[in-house]
Amino acid sequence: MAKKTKNTQPLRIISLGGLQEIGKNITVLEYGNDILVIDCGLAFPDDEMLGVDLVIPDVDYLEKNADRIRAVLLTHGHEDHIGALPYVLKKINPPIYGTRLTLGILKNKLEEFRYEKKPDLHTVEAGSILNFGVFRAEFIHVNHSIADACCIAIKTPLGTVLHTGDFKLDVSPIDGQMMDIARLGQLGNDGVLLMLGESTNAERPGFTPSERKVGSSLEQIFMANPDNRIIIATFSSNVHRVQQIVDASARHGRKVAVIGRSMQNVVGAAVELGYMKVPDGVLIDISEIRRFRDEELTLITTGSQGEPMSALYRIAFAEHDKVKLRPKDLVILSSSPIPGNEKLVGKIVNALVKNGIRVVNDSAADVHVSGHACQEELKLMLALIRPKYFMPIHGEYRHLYAHKALAEFMGIAPENVFVSEIGRVLEIDKKGARFNGSVPAGKILVDGSGVGDVGSVVLRDRKHLSQDGLIVVVATVDLQDMTVLSGPDIISRGFVYVRESEEMMEEARARAGRALEEALADGTTDWMQLKNAVREALSKYFFNKTKRKPMILPVIMNV
Amino acid sequence: MAKKTKNTQPLRIISLGGLQEIGKNITVLEYGNDILVIDCGLAFPDDEMLGVDLVIPDVDYLEKNADRIRAVLLTHGHEDHIGALPYVLKKINPPIYGTRLTLGILKNKLEEFRYEKKPDLHTVEAGSILNFGVFRAEFIHVNHSIADACCIAIKTPLGTVLHTGDFKLDVSPIDGQMMDIARLGQLGNDGVLLMLGESTNAERPGFTPSERKVGSSLEQIFMANPDNRIIIATFSSNVHRVQQIVDASARHGRKVAVIGRSMQNVVGAAVELGYMKVPDGVLIDISEIRRFRDEELTLITTGSQGEPMSALYRIAFAEHDKVKLRPKDLVILSSSPIPGNEKLVGKIVNALVKNGIRVVNDSAADVHVSGHACQEELKLMLALIRPKYFMPIHGEYRHLYAHKALAEFMGIAPENVFVSEIGRVLEIDKKGARFNGSVPAGKILVDGSGVGDVGSVVLRDRKHLSQDGLIVVVATVDLQDMTVLSGPDIISRGFVYVRESEEMMEEARARAGRALEEALADGTTDWMQLKNAVREALSKYFFNKTKRKPMILPVIMNV
Repeated sequence: MAKKTKNTQPLRIISLGGLQEIGKNITVLEYGNDILVIDCGLAFPDDEMLGVDLVIPDVDYLEKNADRIRAVLLTHGHEDHIGALPYVLKKINPPIYGTRLTLGILKNKLEEFRYEKKPDLHTVEAGSILNFGVFRAEFIHVNHSIADACCIAIKTPLGTVLHTGDFKLDVSPIDGQMMDIARLGQLGNDGVLLMLGESTNAERPGFTPSERKVGSSLEQIFMANPDNRIIIATFSSNVHRVQQIVDASARHGRKVAVIGRSMQNVVGAAVELGYMKVPDGVLIDISEIRRFRDEELTLITTGSQGEPMSALYRIAFAEHDKVKLRPKDLVILSSSPIPGNEKLVGKIVNALVKNGIRVVNDSAADVHVSGHACQEELKLMLALIRPKYFMPIHGEYRHLYAHKALAEFMGIAPENVFVSEIGRVLEIDKKGARFNGSVPAGKILVDGSGVGDVGSVVLRDRKHLSQDGLIVVVATVDLQDMTVLSGPDIISRGFVYVRESEEMMEEARARAGRALEEALADGTTDWMQLKNAVREALSKYFFNKTKRKPMILPVIMNV
Repeated sequence: MAKKTKNTQPLRIISLGGLQEIGKNITVLEYGNDILVIDCGLAFPDDEMLGVDLVIPDVDYLEKNADRIRAVLLTHGHEDHIGALPYVLKKINPPIYGTRLTLGILKNKLEEFRYEKKPDLHTVEAGSILNFGVFRAEFIHVNHSIADACCIAIKTPLGTVLHTGDFKLDVSPIDGQMMDIARLGQLGNDGVLLMLGESTNAERPGFTPSERKVGSSLEQIFMANPDNRIIIATFSSNVHRVQQIVDASARHGRKVAVIGRSMQNVVGAAVELGYMKVPDGVLIDISEIRRFRDEELTLITTGSQGEPMSALYRIAFAEHDKVKLRPKDLVILSSSPIPGNEKLVGKIVNALVKNGIRVVNDSAADVHVSGHACQEELKLMLALIRPKYFMPIHGEYRHLYAHKALAEFMGIAPENVFVSEIGRVLEIDKKGARFNGSVPAGKILVDGSGVGDVGSVVLRDRKHLSQDGLIVVVATVDLQDMTVLSGPDIISRGFVYVRESEEMMEEARARAGRALEEALADGTTDWMQLKNAVREALSKYFFNKTKRKPMILPVIMNV
């Protein structure tokens, strides 16, 4: 570790996302006047966030310190690591560093957005070492479910910080490049102050199998089904998976058509950038499939998570204009449902089976492997790095806690393991490490083109409306004569089937009218009080009749 | 098979629920003037059924043929087999037959409802044989995740129909009573015309482990944690599971407190009816736990599916008034999340782990086994019964289809296997079996106290409201002068955070006003046209500004 007497400043580490949650990974390193940001991802909305499209981290802290940000470093090109950048770049415009594929995917995403200033993108490769203020960052190759993934070692005045990114150890990776454990071991031998370790699979024992295992399963399936058209759904970003599907197809004399916009984008970019090698004449356009017999075709498609409107969904429900199911089709789901998506995936499986289609998924054959390190690999990383301090990142509390337990098992002192939360500041100086305060952090909800205009009040109202619907009560009153001039009329939506509830609605109208008249007779002229009188009368009545609590909106006008 | 010349009538088999869906199991057998109903269950709402509490089968067909129903026979006491009875008994009141525990649970449920006629309940036991018109029904013991479960063999003039109910084969069941394979084998030897076989685990290879396996896992956990309070969540209806927890506790000198209303109900009933044996002094009231040290206590609780407001949920989130988490507590989730509940369960696990509590679930130890037959047991049943015709029941299409494949593997001719859908009539006579028409069948949604008053229009509105919220536009016009007298005013809920969108709302008001004035200037006096003018202007404006489509409700009054 560097030992200069002037290093009296502390190193501060702050995750603005990715702690106690899945997604929106972003970590900030700070020393003196310099800030370095690692990743800037999005998260998908949970079940409570009705109508929300995606979630990005609150980067208020970065905006306020924009002039101190030396760079944003990207570990790899998955949405949960780069997906918030299109939004964040509308506010700040720091230089961004990532590998070729990572920036290729990012550029694709950025094209849909307009910026005042052109994004400032810089390509690096595994092994690149760059200086950013007091920091010196080194990109180190790791294996993951996307090509060109790195972890990042950052030399700081107080010592080295290793951010693992997302990783697994694949001793037989498709691109031949195993995670650079030699370099990681060297770093460990030189001494690492702090390791930030991804925790996705920290609850899972053992090792994650090699991506190549999927290849041999696919080979077997291709061998066993020489007469069938094969349709395979997988994550579009898993370039190596797609490569294996292409290779198996080529070996068996099949043409490959790629379906679904994101899949076409990624395959296009991967081939262009050299991350995929496709034998001449194997790739065909989807419009050409009619020229081939079924057994000469493999279709690669999006929709492995059951996404409605994905290509596979439309194929399964006979809504795809170019691909119609055929009786002998074999569908492979080369994926595993992300928690929460099980029912969506099940819906597609049912639709396919109902059409007489055979479906192979990861519970029937080894057609999927995880991209994240399981416990033995996490322990290997800890054994190589042997950091003084450890902070588990990227996971719900249960994952962070499981990773903490692994770190302690590997000999890190419990008091040197820091399970944190977003915004919380981990401060390290020569005396030690400790939590010290926090900075603003949170969720910004993106709905349509609105960023941050949907918050807890809006979500609470959506929830309320979704459960029991809505009653609008309209009346006109004369506040001079204190009489009801017209109405009340009642409009309902999402409450009951109105035609079968006319009697109840008639009674509700009468009760609202009486409540209003009584309030006026009492001399009430306050709008709030008049509305409350109507709201109370109706909510009581409707609850008694239906045991439901619709949202009641009184609209009372004075003429 | 009976061979009388007068038997010219066909036997009709109709499932009104439980086909191509999970839950609301109900099957109708019909011969001549006699109808027999097996089970009458509910289903839980899917993600699209916003605000719906539960789903029951449409029994319109039974109502119209009420005088022909000889009995409802219940296979066991789970919600998906008896849960619709409280609603159905408001319309028809046939005699109901079930085992003691099944009727005990049913009575508990019925107590919350009022009926014109007292429900007509008859207790049977495994081995009981009863005549219902031309039918002769025999209850046969099976193993399942609830005690006192049966399958039912029904002799009809055309031959025997075997309905398996839900079952598994447990060679070492807690109550010592293995599934009566001797009797089933005898039935098979005598000849079975049709088997209706449950399909829940038809995709899973192998055998389902014995319930006793959970007992030995619990024993190990109790041994390894002599100093900890143990909190175990499981399904309240799994009497044998609860028995094993009580036994392990007693062996280790622990008192057992039961938490959660449904768990208390079931344990109370099971002890009273003799289905559970609790050593004297082991059960204590929850209020007594403070009198014991942690290591002397086991708490059995509801909430194993992560249900909000369940006892475990409230304990995990420190909202339970009688049970506070203690640092050394060990929580066992003796269950497996039903598809769709993974995130709810995860939420509780995270809350527990965050409190420093260790959590053991079925992926960490064998603390749960399924109650349903896996492939080898389904094949065993088919081998015992060797039915002429086979109809898989109780499952989504993928499960029914997997069961069909098993039946064909076991030698049943493909043309004798009938994968059906709800309402579809399977007709069997001496010439053969075939589908022949259908009767009304479907889903009735229960929301609050409303049964069937929520349908597709209401759900569509709830969905719309939940995604983008609501805009109410209010204006008063004078249709004689063709002028706008007051407004338009705009009220929004669940759309945007209003305080930060004042400018947009102001512009929306102006646009609505212009649209209304222009329509009036064109001489429009039709309400629909005036409203449409406002709706169109606003939906276009809001979509351009936000890419969202709130529900727009124009309220225009004439003075």
